[in-house]
Amino acid sequence: MNGDGLRRVIIESVAPEIDGGQHPIKRVPKEHVVVEADAYADGHDLLTVILKSRHESEKTWSETAMKPLGNDRWRGEFEVTELGVYLYTIEGWVDPFSSWRRDLLKRIEAQQDVSMDLIIGERLVEEAAKRANDVDAQSLQAWAREFSQSGESTMKARIERVLDEEMTKLTLRFPDRSHATTHEKELRVTVDPILARTGAWYEIFPRSCPGKVGRHGTFKDVEAFLPHVAEMGFDVLYLPPIHPIGQSFRKGKNNNPVCQPDEPGSPWGIGSKEGGHTAIHPELGTLDDFKGMLRKARELKIEVALDIAFQCSPDHPWVREHPQWFRERPDGTIQYAENPPKKYQDIYPINFESDDWPALWQELKRVIVYWIAHGVRVFRVDNPHTKSLPFWEWVIGDIRQTRPDVIFLAEAFTRPHLMYGLSKLGFNQSYNYFPWRNTKAELIEYFTELSQPPVSEFFRANLWPNTPDILTRYLQDGGRPAFIARLILAATLGASYGIYGPTFEFMENKPVQKDGEEYLNSEKYEIRSWDLNRADNLTDLISRVNRIRRENPALHDLHHFQFHHTDNDTIIAYSKTDDELKNVVLIIVNLDPYNVQSGWVDLTLEELGIAPGTTFQVHDLLTDARYSWHGDRNYVELRPWEMPAHIFRVSSDFT
Amino acid sequence: MNGDGLRRVIIESVAPEIDGGQHPIKRVPKEHVVVEADAYADGHDLLTVILKSRHESEKTWSETAMKPLGNDRWRGEFEVTELGVYLYTIEGWVDPFSSWRRDLLKRIEAQQDVSMDLIIGERLVEEAAKRANDVDAQSLQAWAREFSQSGESTMKARIERVLDEEMTKLTLRFPDRSHATTHEKELRVTVDPILARTGAWYEIFPRSCPGKVGRHGTFKDVEAFLPHVAEMGFDVLYLPPIHPIGQSFRKGKNNNPVCQPDEPGSPWGIGSKEGGHTAIHPELGTLDDFKGMLRKARELKIEVALDIAFQCSPDHPWVREHPQWFRERPDGTIQYAENPPKKYQDIYPINFESDDWPALWQELKRVIVYWIAHGVRVFRVDNPHTKSLPFWEWVIGDIRQTRPDVIFLAEAFTRPHLMYGLSKLGFNQSYNYFPWRNTKAELIEYFTELSQPPVSEFFRANLWPNTPDILTRYLQDGGRPAFIARLILAATLGASYGIYGPTFEFMENKPVQKDGEEYLNSEKYEIRSWDLNRADNLTDLISRVNRIRRENPALHDLHHFQFHHTDNDTIIAYSKTDDELKNVVLIIVNLDPYNVQSGWVDLTLEELGIAPGTTFQVHDLLTDARYSWHGDRNYVELRPWEMPAHIFRVSSDFT
Repeated sequence: MNGDGLRRVIIESVAPEIDGGQHPIKRVPKEHVVVEADAYADGHDLLTVILKSRHESEKTWSETAMKPLGNDRWRGEFEVTELGVYLYTIEGWVDPFSSWRRDLLKRIEAQQDVSMDLIIGERLVEEAAKRANDVDAQSLQAWAREFSQSGESTMKARIERVLDEEMTKLTLRFPDRSHATTHEKELRVTVDPILARTGAWYEIFPRSCPGKVGRHGTFKDVEAFLPHVAEMGFDVLYLPPIHPIGQSFRKGKNNNPVCQPDEPGSPWGIGSKEGGHTAIHPELGTLDDFKGMLRKARELKIEVALDIAFQCSPDHPWVREHPQWFRERPDGTIQYAENPPKKYQDIYPINFESDDWPALWQELKRVIVYWIAHGVRVFRVDNPHTKSLPFWEWVIGDIRQTRPDVIFLAEAFTRPHLMYGLSKLGFNQSYNYFPWRNTKAELIEYFTELSQPPVSEFFRANLWPNTPDILTRYLQDGGRPAFIARLILAATLGASYGIYGPTFEFMENKPVQKDGEEYLNSEKYEIRSWDLNRADNLTDLISRVNRIRRENPALHDLHHFQFHHTDNDTIIAYSKTDDELKNVVLIIVNLDPYNVQSGWVDLTLEELGIAPGTTFQVHDLLTDARYSWHGDRNYVELRPWEMPAHIFRVSSDFT
Repeated sequence: MNGDGLRRVIIESVAPEIDGGQHPIKRVPKEHVVVEADAYADGHDLLTVILKSRHESEKTWSETAMKPLGNDRWRGEFEVTELGVYLYTIEGWVDPFSSWRRDLLKRIEAQQDVSMDLIIGERLVEEAAKRANDVDAQSLQAWAREFSQSGESTMKARIERVLDEEMTKLTLRFPDRSHATTHEKELRVTVDPILARTGAWYEIFPRSCPGKVGRHGTFKDVEAFLPHVAEMGFDVLYLPPIHPIGQSFRKGKNNNPVCQPDEPGSPWGIGSKEGGHTAIHPELGTLDDFKGMLRKARELKIEVALDIAFQCSPDHPWVREHPQWFRERPDGTIQYAENPPKKYQDIYPINFESDDWPALWQELKRVIVYWIAHGVRVFRVDNPHTKSLPFWEWVIGDIRQTRPDVIFLAEAFTRPHLMYGLSKLGFNQSYNYFPWRNTKAELIEYFTELSQPPVSEFFRANLWPNTPDILTRYLQDGGRPAFIARLILAATLGASYGIYGPTFEFMENKPVQKDGEEYLNSEKYEIRSWDLNRADNLTDLISRVNRIRRENPALHDLHHFQFHHTDNDTIIAYSKTDDELKNVVLIIVNLDPYNVQSGWVDLTLEELGIAPGTTFQVHDLLTDARYSWHGDRNYVELRPWEMPAHIFRVSSDFT
């Protein structure tokens, strides 16, 4: 018989609640958190259920009433405004005053004598008055006296006063919460900068910076290239590792195990006598050059994302200074990376099972903090799924305590639970299976999963049609229409998307082997030069797509996203809208890069803010063409070599 | 940096886990608990995941290996054998030996030099030896030495030894669990007697006991009636309250607010000067008579269920002795029961919001314990949803500590969450919406919900086609075919079912009002006599249905239950099987009590243990007719006035 035997309300099935509240949900400022729960008590008394929320820096809860949805389900919501962590929970109690009032109305309707009920109500109001402050207490006491006041006042007049709406509301402001039930968990919301949700990314290898010709590129080249990136409308410029590159077992062109003396090696072979993860590859420039580039980028409203690749070349200082952070082989050498039977002798993985893990974790954190201190706010983390999960949870959580504006993108191309797990543990966004979802059925299945709870609550997808490791068969074979289709899918399905820049902009699509996904003459192993004035490029289209993204708030999130039926299996259609249906975007893509495809698209007009049966306008933001559509079924025809997609702004307004 | 940074395994999405582990699941002895979970770690190492379980009285866990289902999902199971509470949880760890062995096989296949790997393996086996007991340690040490033994042994012979299956298994018996992850929750299973899951119930008002004529029935009459109940094959005889009935505001025939002096009142108007909830209504007999009846019942393998109705007549001793357990009205009187604008002045509800709740709870518990002490093991609890939920959780939990063989049936005809909540908090089984699920679509929807997790894990439905409060329109209008259809549905859809005995057996179906569900001349308010020899009865059919239930284990639970498509909306078909498909029962019911209905029934034969495309036998256990059916689509025709249902035993065996 422990506890409060008078606590009657039960609260269950709270959503969102990731893994029983173990992990936070994610938001950006000005987004809402809609919370639902079952709340009920024995019998038929009415309940009050409230949603309580607060920023972790605040001491007191903000409270909002939850509304009953029927069947004992309740819903409430709150807005987050500050970066950091918010907490929320639910509290409910039995509301005797409202229950009394409901019954009173029934008795009045049945024309019963309610004089006894009025006395009961009077007492309830008197109790509320005791809980109220001075002024309100006096109002309530005065009101309570009217309940049983006999004499000149008729019963009808008295009942009218007793049912007064304003005084009812005032009474309800002072409930007896001494036996309230509070949900046993305080649930968390991680509030990240908007860029964690919405952004367009462009990746370049600085040593092969577009614009420079025939030599090793530098941060100064990148600085000169930044206006081009800004003009195209990108928010983030992501650079692969900028650290000194090891010599031992350095790989040559096209991943050749034998390297020529003048070959530069892979930027992921981190560490040489010039330093490790906090050093800069000398040929790229100095720390000052780096900071100058960051400054220029910020002027152009571009964030520079660095690569966090926690692995070492055999020449990395850590190998000599902290051999205990690596796995030793029986012959005393250090274990290189393997995926048996494949061997990667140029890379030493860090051994997260080292007994010296506390020092190792601190040093790895120092690396991230070092770059943050020099102005970096965005990190793309290389293969986080092959490093310790408790480490990521700790390091991201620790850094967020003081710097919630920092963003970590997980390059986690791995099994579903592990990929989702990294996001639950702290990564703000993640790579995902988008590159390999190319058919209509695959795209619908995957983006239905990503856009719905629980996944949508904690996992933010950043969609990349290509990366330095991924040249898909679809891009290899499909030519320009394939590039355009994938660009538009990435940019409109994803609130965040990115392209591995020059290769995408100039539609490079030759693989080393037809059945592989490695680029021929990959920038990973050699220095390339890119001619920005090359005739066949996607520069203008990319700029236009990014402008469309910026101008259409519907594309900034996945809050209101749905697929629409089409009668052609190579035509995919989906729409996004803002909260108020002021911005409605309908995207239709021909996924077949070879053939003209046509078909009928079914819309549910009301959900797009269009009155059923009316004529409305679809304005193609790619081509500026405008069409009048009528009703919920309309015809499209998409010619891949002209433009394999429509991005329609949908509106009833023809002006 | 708290905790163990080397704990790499993550365990998530454990099922069953009711409300995040807040509530137990339910089982009876010899049932299995199948547990699934996601378990994964960074990288590609293999894991070991085990299911741990124990009876609460045991100190050590039993462990069974969980099997990977793919996609990082794991499954394991354990059997419960004893009443009481079992606990289960999951533990997982990274398995370096299995990971090493997997990689070794890949290297061998790629014809690589594995001499270094054998030394690594040797060390892993030596570490396992250190964790092993004496004999096993010596075996493992000897085996480890063979890994790197050069000289006379060829590499091929060595590898063969290293891959030895038996020694591999022995090594895996001694894993390093120092960094294992244990699921944060210990989940609970309530193990109840089989009767909590499977049973046939029969309800009589003892004062109107069938057999006796024209006077107040007694426990001795009930004793004389018990052989009839046993012959019909019932497991439980449920009696409405047997306590003294109050005089104040006693209701007359057909709920008449004015009562004649000789009218007996409702058994639910509990308490008079003769006593309250631990007293016996004098006209029924003495406590010794009651105990004699219990003894006789137990000889016949029948449990007598008592009614726990925690409410009082104004004459109940508690009203005088503990007025603080009731709600006082402003005029000093006690608040009677109401459902505004309806008033029930003969009933005082107990006020669970009393400040004196601890004493109240103890007294209510004393009532239950009193009857248990006198031999009662089964209770039907009247309207538990109008009493305090924390009280039920406490009282049932407390009693179960010493008497896990006691069963509580919740008469909770209320909102879904509240009804389910009572079962989560401790009720072993529950009334439910079955009486009002009469169409095929309603039945399929409801029994799909009841037979699947999570509901099937904690909620056991007891199906009653009628009760003293519920004479449905379907029974009012449908005559004998309706009674038979509902009997067969209740007895075969439910592992537990019950009938409000004589009214059902003799098909009484006259309501007070056509649009209500109250019986005309209800036994609740008057003494009735029933002629057991009345010609038009269902006695033989009920006996046969109960025999079919007893003889067919498939009907004892909902473990393997599915609906089958039929092309007629008034014909419902479903099957139940045992675990081994030795007992396969197919039920087909015509829900239209007026017309002959026919149609085609689709079966998935493999799921019923029949080879597709073969001829098999369906043996109607109701009529003893046998039919040869062929393939997965067969024809049925059901004539309601002959027999509106088939209960087929399905078999490939024609003997």
